[in-house]
Amino acid sequence: MPDKLMQMQRAYGSRPRMIAIAGDSAAGKTTLSKGLVAALGEDRSVTLCVDDYHKYDRQERKELPFTPLSPECNYIDVMEQHLQLLATGQPILKPVYDHATGELDRPEYVEPRDFIIIEGLLPLHTKLMRACFDVNVYLDPPEEIRYEWKIARDTSKRGYEREQVTAELDKREPESEAYIRPQREFADIVVRFAPVEGHDNDPLSATLLLRPNVKQPHLTRVLGDENGSATSERAMHLKMARDAGGNPVDALHVHGHAPPEETEVAKKLLWESLGRESDVPDSLGKLSESARSEPLALTQLVMLYYMLANFD
Amino acid sequence: MPDKLMQMQRAYGSRPRMIAIAGDSAAGKTTLSKGLVAALGEDRSVTLCVDDYHKYDRQERKELPFTPLSPECNYIDVMEQHLQLLATGQPILKPVYDHATGELDRPEYVEPRDFIIIEGLLPLHTKLMRACFDVNVYLDPPEEIRYEWKIARDTSKRGYEREQVTAELDKREPESEAYIRPQREFADIVVRFAPVEGHDNDPLSATLLLRPNVKQPHLTRVLGDENGSATSERAMHLKMARDAGGNPVDALHVHGHAPPEETEVAKKLLWESLGRESDVPDSLGKLSESARSEPLALTQLVMLYYMLANFD
Repeated sequence: MPDKLMQMQRAYGSRPRMIAIAGDSAAGKTTLSKGLVAALGEDRSVTLCVDDYHKYDRQERKELPFTPLSPECNYIDVMEQHLQLLATGQPILKPVYDHATGELDRPEYVEPRDFIIIEGLLPLHTKLMRACFDVNVYLDPPEEIRYEWKIARDTSKRGYEREQVTAELDKREPESEAYIRPQREFADIVVRFAPVEGHDNDPLSATLLLRPNVKQPHLTRVLGDENGSATSERAMHLKMARDAGGNPVDALHVHGHAPPEETEVAKKLLWESLGRESDVPDSLGKLSESARSEPLALTQLVMLYYMLANFD
Repeated sequence: MPDKLMQMQRAYGSRPRMIAIAGDSAAGKTTLSKGLVAALGEDRSVTLCVDDYHKYDRQERKELPFTPLSPECNYIDVMEQHLQLLATGQPILKPVYDHATGELDRPEYVEPRDFIIIEGLLPLHTKLMRACFDVNVYLDPPEEIRYEWKIARDTSKRGYEREQVTAELDKREPESEAYIRPQREFADIVVRFAPVEGHDNDPLSATLLLRPNVKQPHLTRVLGDENGSATSERAMHLKMARDAGGNPVDALHVHGHAPPEETEVAKKLLWESLGRESDVPDSLGKLSESARSEPLALTQLVMLYYMLANFD
C-alpha cells in the first residue's frame, strides 16, 4: 500500500486538508492536536487556535455581560473569512490573544500547509466554518473530569487559585450550554475520555462516536467489528449505537486497561493502514514529558485515518 | 441635477467606492484625505493606512537592511487580500502600527462603508492592489517641500530631532526611488503642491495631472478649457500637456494667488457639479485648526468629482 502521508503533498495552489478540534476549555484539544502535528510532520502542518479571535482583552471583558465562550465575544465573521482563506490555500494575518497576560497582541502571519488543525471553543459554530473542514472533531469528556483538568492547568500554568477557576467555570456554564456543547452534534467524530467502571486506577478509556457522514473506507476493514476478525479486540472494538438524536453511529471503544501487546497491534494496524512503513511515532499518545496514554495514541491514529483516508 | 453623493448609498452587498492616495512620507496624504472624509460624511467613509501592514516594529527594523518603504518590510500579500475583501464589501481585521511608539498593536475591525480611502506609502505597488481602486491619486510635492513638511511633522508630533529626520530621509532615498516614486506612473491623478515663481509669499499652488484613463464627464464641461468658457480662470485652468512618458494628459493648474472671489466661484461650480445644493463645506481646504489652502480645497473637489462621476 502506498504511503498516504507522502502522497498528500499539496500541489501548488491546491486546498490543504483541514481538521477541526472543538471543545470546551481544558477538554484536551491541545494535547490531541500536538500528537497529530508530530505525526504529520511539523513542517507540513500548522495548528491555529480560533480563541485568538477574541474581540476584547481580559480587562475589557470585566465590563461585559458575557464570557469568551460567547460568539458575541469573538469576531466570528473574521474567523469564517480566515478559515475560508486558509481552505483555499491563502495566507492570513491572524490575531493573537495572549492567555498568560489576557492581552491582544500583534497579529501573526500564517501560511497554509498541507495539513491545518483548527482548535478552539467555537470552530464548529457556523455552517460556513464547518464547511471549511475535512473532518470535524468534538472533545466531550465528562464535566467532572474537564473541571479537574481545567483546575489543574489554570492553577499551574495560568496563575489562578482553585476557587477562581471554579467560580469562572460556574460563570461560564450557561454559555457552555448555549454555544459550546451544541457543536457536538455537528462533529464527525465525538471523542470522550473517561474512566471505565471497575477500572478506576487504569488510564482513561476513550470512546469515539463515528458519524457515518465521514466518507472513508470503513474502519471495520482495518479493525474488524463486533462479529468479526479483530486481532486486537481487547484494545479497541467497534459497536453500532444510537447517538443522542437517535441516529445510528459507530461507537469505537478504546480500552485504557488493554494489555500493551494488544494495544501495539491495534496501533500498528492503523499506522499501516495509512501506508506507513516506519514505526508508530512516540509522539502519538504523549500527555506530557513523562506521561503517556495509549487510548490517546489510538484516538489520534483514528483521526489520522479519517484525515488521510479517501485522499486519492 | 440630482445629488450624486446621496445617490451613492451603497446597496447591501454591493461594492464600495475606493480611492487610493499614495505618496512618500509627509507628502500630504492625511491632510488631503481628511477633507474628503469630512465632505463625504464621517458616517459613510472610512480611511485606512496601508503603512499599518508593516511586518516589523521599530526595534526589529534596526537589525534589518531595509526601511519601512521597502515592500519587503510590509505584508504586501495581506494588503492585497484586505483591499480585495473591502472592495467586495467584506470586513477585515486590520493590523495596527503605532507611529508614536513604533510598535505593532492589536488589530482593529474595519467594516467597509460607501467610500473607502486608502492612503499610504505603497497602495499602488502591485497590479492587484491598483485593480481595487476606482481612482488612484499620487501626491508628488517637490522633494525640498516634502523634506520641510517631514521635518516639521516628525519634530513636532513624533518627537525626533531635526538631524535624525534628515538622516532618515537620506537613508530612505534609495527606496523612495525604487518603490515609492514608480507608483506615480500608475496614478489617474498626480497632485503637486508647489510655489509658483514670483509668488513666494502666496499659498502653494496645485498642479493636477489628469490622465485620460479616468473615465468621467470631462472637467471642461464644468470648468471650460484654455479656449473656453471658464468663469474662474484665474482660480484654475486646464491645459493639455505631455507627461513624463510622453502621453497626453490634462494639467489642471490651481492658483494659490487667485482672488478669493474667483476661487469661490470655481469651488461652487465643482460642488454643484456633484449635484450638491448645500454650501461648500469648510472642511475642504483645511490644513490645521487655524490654516486653510484654497488650492487644497479645489484639489479635493476635483478628487470628489472623479470619485462620484459616472456613478449611475
